[in-house]
Amino acid sequence: MDSYIKGYFCEKDIADDCDKIISAVKCDKLIHAEKTKYQDLVVFESDVLGRCLALDGAMQLTEKDEFSYQEMISFLPLNSHPNPKKVLIVGGGDGGVIRECLKHPSVESITLCEIDERVVEVSKKYLPFMASSFNDPKVKVLIGDGYAYIRENKDAFDVIITDSSDPKGPAVSLFQKEYYQSLKECLRSGGIIACQAETIWFHLHLIKFLYATASELFASVAYALTLVPTYPSGQIGFLLACKDKKINFGEPIHKLTDEQVAEMKLKYYSTEIHRASFVLPNFVRNELKTETQSK
Amino acid sequence: MDSYIKGYFCEKDIADDCDKIISAVKCDKLIHAEKTKYQDLVVFESDVLGRCLALDGAMQLTEKDEFSYQEMISFLPLNSHPNPKKVLIVGGGDGGVIRECLKHPSVESITLCEIDERVVEVSKKYLPFMASSFNDPKVKVLIGDGYAYIRENKDAFDVIITDSSDPKGPAVSLFQKEYYQSLKECLRSGGIIACQAETIWFHLHLIKFLYATASELFASVAYALTLVPTYPSGQIGFLLACKDKKINFGEPIHKLTDEQVAEMKLKYYSTEIHRASFVLPNFVRNELKTETQSK
Repeated sequence: MDSYIKGYFCEKDIADDCDKIISAVKCDKLIHAEKTKYQDLVVFESDVLGRCLALDGAMQLTEKDEFSYQEMISFLPLNSHPNPKKVLIVGGGDGGVIRECLKHPSVESITLCEIDERVVEVSKKYLPFMASSFNDPKVKVLIGDGYAYIRENKDAFDVIITDSSDPKGPAVSLFQKEYYQSLKECLRSGGIIACQAETIWFHLHLIKFLYATASELFASVAYALTLVPTYPSGQIGFLLACKDKKINFGEPIHKLTDEQVAEMKLKYYSTEIHRASFVLPNFVRNELKTETQSK
Repeated sequence: MDSYIKGYFCEKDIADDCDKIISAVKCDKLIHAEKTKYQDLVVFESDVLGRCLALDGAMQLTEKDEFSYQEMISFLPLNSHPNPKKVLIVGGGDGGVIRECLKHPSVESITLCEIDERVVEVSKKYLPFMASSFNDPKVKVLIGDGYAYIRENKDAFDVIITDSSDPKGPAVSLFQKEYYQSLKECLRSGGIIACQAETIWFHLHLIKFLYATASELFASVAYALTLVPTYPSGQIGFLLACKDKKINFGEPIHKLTDEQVAEMKLKYYSTEIHRASFVLPNFVRNELKTETQSK
């Protein structure tokens, strides 16, 4: 099934790439479409969702709801680390994670490693609300294979955020044990990772695998939920792990006041949301065999 | 746009009933379809979602994910009340809320008032996982207008659960101020309501209206979230309110142990999930002007 049918962008919903559940968004105006070296890239305008970017037929972001993903994948690890100075972002070529990480007062440098230069260029041109911070002096953008970059850099970062697409196409290697091993080695002592880790509703088997894999390698592991209505199932999650310290991810070290939340223009993340995001439904908790997350 | 296109059940996603976002579920086997006195009723089988029931083109439940809705709309109010003996369910003809309420040890009687007898009959026949408890001696089923029943009964129930469909068709009157006034009068002292209250992503204006309306009438009001991947946006919420007591809905009076959760076969609800469900993203909290929900 093609991604475009009669003016609708159509996305298959299930992990196995079958066509049992499909979500369709009216494409009110096509802004840009190209086949890059790595993937099909489309930007379109939806009357109800604003600007939307899709890669290989999967919605990556919409103007209406991107904040819940960008804020959570950034602030969950940053606020779990006592002093996150050096941040690496793997993927994230739209610039949204950079935008959020720059809000954190401890962050001194952000390196972004995006394999597809066209995602960065197209985002700069058509998604200014995402790609607003590429020129910030703290930001360094590398075009290349993030996995290779991680292997070449040891003990280098306090926080590594893997802002990847789904485990197919260019992102498939980012959901394997070797990648997590390399992430660990790329972290400084006390370092934390946050990786895009799919939905509890249709990818629980994958989440279980990632959780178990990370648990073999890292001192602390947790899975957190956020809501993104334009992703399949309306929910996506993040795998967080700390290299060498036992930490309780459910209780952030940096607690933002309501004033800070307002100053930082956070529409989703708060200290309370941070805590709540690690509380998992029983059917997930039982699969991951996590202990009761809060008292 | 019709609900069935080329073997797919298609649902429009947005409050305004436009066709900008559509979700489509492959209808692998049509089990039953009829036009009842009140609405179009369809039961079909999906390979990935199991048995599904739709009313007037809107998905009401699927076998895969119904538990998160049924458990939450039942246990959030029941565990917020010190002694919920008498329960009224408005709507809920599929029987799922009865099934959950019967698990609570304090509950002595459950009255269900469903306007459409065919929903009850069809659920008994085709959805045995939902309609398992209609014959329980604690349960009384009335076929009729729930709103009329509420107006006729004062100071009668400890908990009233409005398990309604969306605010169109037979359910439209259940989203109006007069209905909330009648709910209040139908409650006994200390009584609590829980009403289906749509999604934060596309119906925030309605939620704001319901929240403000209930705040004028009730002593305590709160909105809670749950995840239902087969509902539009993947999230739905509940409006809870207590007739005449200041209570903190975010902290349940009855705290279930892990053993109780296992005994009751709860796949979603736990004490931790209860607390977390009242923690709202900033953009919702700001609209509802609620205070910080947890400390």
